[in-house]
Amino acid sequence: MYKLVLIRHGESTWNLENRFTGWTDVDLTPTGVSQAMSAGKLLKAEGWDFDLCYTSVLKRAIHTLWYTLDEMDRTWLPVVKNYRLNERHYGGLQGLNKIDMAKEYGDEQVLIWRRSYDTPPPALEADDPRGQRGDRRYADLAPEQIPLTECLKDTVARVVPYWEQTIAPSVKSGQRVLIAAHGNSIRALIKHLDGISDADIVNLNIPNGIPLVYEFDDNMKPLRRYYLGDAEAAAAAAAAVASQGKA
Amino acid sequence: MYKLVLIRHGESTWNLENRFTGWTDVDLTPTGVSQAMSAGKLLKAEGWDFDLCYTSVLKRAIHTLWYTLDEMDRTWLPVVKNYRLNERHYGGLQGLNKIDMAKEYGDEQVLIWRRSYDTPPPALEADDPRGQRGDRRYADLAPEQIPLTECLKDTVARVVPYWEQTIAPSVKSGQRVLIAAHGNSIRALIKHLDGISDADIVNLNIPNGIPLVYEFDDNMKPLRRYYLGDAEAAAAAAAAVASQGKA
Repeated sequence: MYKLVLIRHGESTWNLENRFTGWTDVDLTPTGVSQAMSAGKLLKAEGWDFDLCYTSVLKRAIHTLWYTLDEMDRTWLPVVKNYRLNERHYGGLQGLNKIDMAKEYGDEQVLIWRRSYDTPPPALEADDPRGQRGDRRYADLAPEQIPLTECLKDTVARVVPYWEQTIAPSVKSGQRVLIAAHGNSIRALIKHLDGISDADIVNLNIPNGIPLVYEFDDNMKPLRRYYLGDAEAAAAAAAAVASQGKA
Repeated sequence: MYKLVLIRHGESTWNLENRFTGWTDVDLTPTGVSQAMSAGKLLKAEGWDFDLCYTSVLKRAIHTLWYTLDEMDRTWLPVVKNYRLNERHYGGLQGLNKIDMAKEYGDEQVLIWRRSYDTPPPALEADDPRGQRGDRRYADLAPEQIPLTECLKDTVARVVPYWEQTIAPSVKSGQRVLIAAHGNSIRALIKHLDGISDADIVNLNIPNGIPLVYEFDDNMKPLRRYYLGDAEAAAAAAAAVASQGKA
């Protein structure tokens, strides 16, 4: 049996300000740091260990991984950073307040932008300073690989090939893998792994900083997934994520 | 012309306690953190940027790199960790106080242990808990690759192949490389690059947390090396390193 652990980054400054973040590279809040450290303490206390880590190229995920590894005394583990694990790109909503948007466009429209499987938010202009086409970290990508907006379907389309070609083979080779990523890149992976429908994925929310374990059979078929630690706390944290966009 | 930047980690807890460290995985002191942050601020202020980073598998170097990258807003850069950049293994001296040793064995003997090119300190027993043969981070190495003691000549023998086979090709490919490493792994590299004699390398000391720049011609022949920032401060810090083992 193979196992994999996923962690959504701890609370970010824009989570706290209730702003759409996407590919904007905001950092953790002190609460987010504390969540990341708690994840590391929990993994260590429950005897988990790893051989290889993956994360995005966004500092809220990278720092979450660093704090987790520090708590586990595993600073030395190899870490692979890839943009394919980035958060969903939020297009023209990046930087805007979720509640302001709900007041202006209504709860329903914001829920569509936040959770519709195939309706992206309005796109950024290619030269919008809130966009990433001038960001050196994406210099190796073709412009069309740097989104101006994404729906979850788009995120699935970039996360799944990275899972299939890179991460899953490393898990199947026997390496114990830890991934620090984002709400929507994790949702994209869960949708793929568990065959969740386009309709049902809307209702799946990922809490910050709580390790999520996947177990796979010998053919990498998922057997089950569960949060480590207090199940009620994980459910309450996921419910709080769900309510973020309501006016 | 190619460039390379090297940083010796900031002050560690055992630097502060004046203990021989070697492969013991001690962390930075608050001063060490501050030195690492200063290195990042200086690199940023002087317009340096990087594409690829190398460090050891010891947290004082890894954390130095992390703080440096944070200050440069380059958290997302790829980082390769390899034991070949580790500090010189200090054998049976690991954990012991440099001044206590000088009082017991004399300044001259301690200087030989610290700086002789080819006389290693007394070896650890293979099962000494201060040794690394049971440490999972070295599990992929053959036992004989995990030293029980090293002289600088031994450190040169493991650092230089990594330079020649891995780091130098990445520099020559046009990548701007940053290395966060240790006093003796950096001395080993300088000895090789600048052809310093076995006798003269004794007197070369590397200050903590001050970026050291190498410039190479098109054939990777070193043209010059210099510290960034205040040259007098770098010289004073190097002199302080030199005096650490005197009773």
